[in-house]
Amino acid sequence: MIHTTILRARYGESDQMGFIHHANHVVWMELSRINLLRECGVNCRELEIAGILVPVVSVAVKYVSPAFFDDEISVQAAVTRKTRARFRVDYLVCRKNGDLLCHGHTDHCLLDKSSRKPIPIPESIYFSLRIDEPAQAWPSWRNP
Amino acid sequence: MIHTTILRARYGESDQMGFIHHANHVVWMELSRINLLRECGVNCRELEIAGILVPVVSVAVKYVSPAFFDDEISVQAAVTRKTRARFRVDYLVCRKNGDLLCHGHTDHCLLDKSSRKPIPIPESIYFSLRIDEPAQAWPSWRNP
Amino acid sequence: MIHTTILRARYGESDQMGFIHHANHVVWMELSRINLLRECGVNCRELEIAGILVPVVSVAVKYVSPAFFDDEISVQAAVTRKTRARFRVDYLVCRKNGDLLCHGHTDHCLLDKSSRKPIPIPESIYFSLRIDEPAQAWPSWRNP
Amino acid sequence: MIHTTILRARYGESDQMGFIHHANHVVWMELSRINLLRECGVNCRELEIAGILVPVVSVAVKYVSPAFFDDEISVQAAVTRKTRARFRVDYLVCRKNGDLLCHGHTDHCLLDKSSRKPIPIPESIYFSLRIDEPAQAWPSWRNP
Repeated sequence: MIHTTILRARYGESDQMGFIHHANHVVWMELSRINLLRECGVNCRELEIAGILVPVVSVAVKYVSPAFFDDEISVQAAVTRKTRARFRVDYLVCRKNGDLLCHGHTDHCLLDKSSRKPIPIPESIYFSLRIDEPAQAWPSWRNP
Repeated sequence: MIHTTILRARYGESDQMGFIHHANHVVWMELSRINLLRECGVNCRELEIAGILVPVVSVAVKYVSPAFFDDEISVQAAVTRKTRARFRVDYLVCRKNGDLLCHGHTDHCLLDKSSRKPIPIPESIYFSLRIDEPAQAWPSWRNP
Repeated sequence: MIHTTILRARYGESDQMGFIHHANHVVWMELSRINLLRECGVNCRELEIAGILVPVVSVAVKYVSPAFFDDEISVQAAVTRKTRARFRVDYLVCRKNGDLLCHGHTDHCLLDKSSRKPIPIPESIYFSLRIDEPAQAWPSWRNP
Repeated sequence: MIHTTILRARYGESDQMGFIHHANHVVWMELSRINLLRECGVNCRELEIAGILVPVVSVAVKYVSPAFFDDEISVQAAVTRKTRARFRVDYLVCRKNGDLLCHGHTDHCLLDKSSRKPIPIPESIYFSLRIDEPAQAWPSWRNP
């Protein structure tokens, strides 16, 4: 499954170069990932209430073109790898007109909320994470 | 007690006007408040572990002059009012050269962490919050 | 005119109290203000290109109830005062279920981008800023 | 040259897991990079005034252990690669007690401010960027 989140770049996300500051793309990826997981049937809010945290264990982003305040942005996200310990989400961030802004991926594990120790991905979650091969247009997926 | 926190304005805090985005001054005030309270003997980190939250119930800021990336900033903070239910902290934010950037205040109550209901300020905290009359230079204190 | 912006509270906007951190409400108000002004015919992006900045000269927020990650949020905004030098926008921030989260206002002036000096509000902008009396439900408007 | 920036994790940087939200480590790396470059004689503030931007073209972070609000954090940064088009900075982020929190790197090019086109790194900057081989303790440098 490939999920697309549409958002508008916020004024407060711009920096004095006149570009959207690069740390915000990491936040946009998180937005998109949470929406993707929800659509897969994995609700991060309910998971935390049930005592399971889904932290980021790595993030990688390649910036291709700057985003600007007020741009309409599409963030595509897809689960591209999974084991019983970890899963990866790949992202493609574009301007509405199709300009590629950045691409990247994040890796995740699951933690027990009280012990803060890693736990295996429960079967129900594992099978909900439907792997997708993003289109050829996704550079980070082709060259991880 | 008047506490002074020194910080340097971050690149990521700038916006496309070339100014520090106004929401960051609210974050700077929080930094300074936590340092002030720590110096008063009220450690917010330990308080949360003990089950007491210190949320913001109101914030007011008047912006006088823009801050710029890389500026050295001093944030002065003082407790200026307290009751058994609430306390107020006033702030004066200046550039190192003395330029007044903004001033303001925040009001706070205490919440029980599990019930999320307001609780009276415990005696030990109440007496630790030493009221101070900021100098005449503090406009928000003179004209609240 | 009262404009309503709908957004979803982001994970990265939460803090360790489990609430949305209070500085983000200031960012949400900005989002909503920019949308309101656009609908009034005042496009902040084009205004900056034309050399006019619209900084915040003051902000005031009263927090009534915490927002949580993943909440759907409505931010209503209306211009409630204007002179030839300044204008005020009032805000009402609610959860989708109607819970009042916070209310507040911001004041704005216009700056010339190159000199960074205040300028009078041009006639075309002044007349575009349609004043609205928010409903009785807006506490900050009733008690400024 | 290896530069060390000391900072304290801010309350507003925490998230509802009780950890510092992962996007803030990217901001901390930027802080540390700007300090490193300043010490190398490359002042980003003056560079922008002179019409040269230093955007991020990629970022990669591996998170090892969570940071917590109020932790004292050391961010070490060193230039580890350079060509006439790009340079890389590696980072090691630790808690004061020595716990490794995360490590990573960013790649940078230079842009002409008005055309927003990449420019070769001027000689004076190129020679100021002193390459350093971080200690064996730097995992991202050993396994890029």
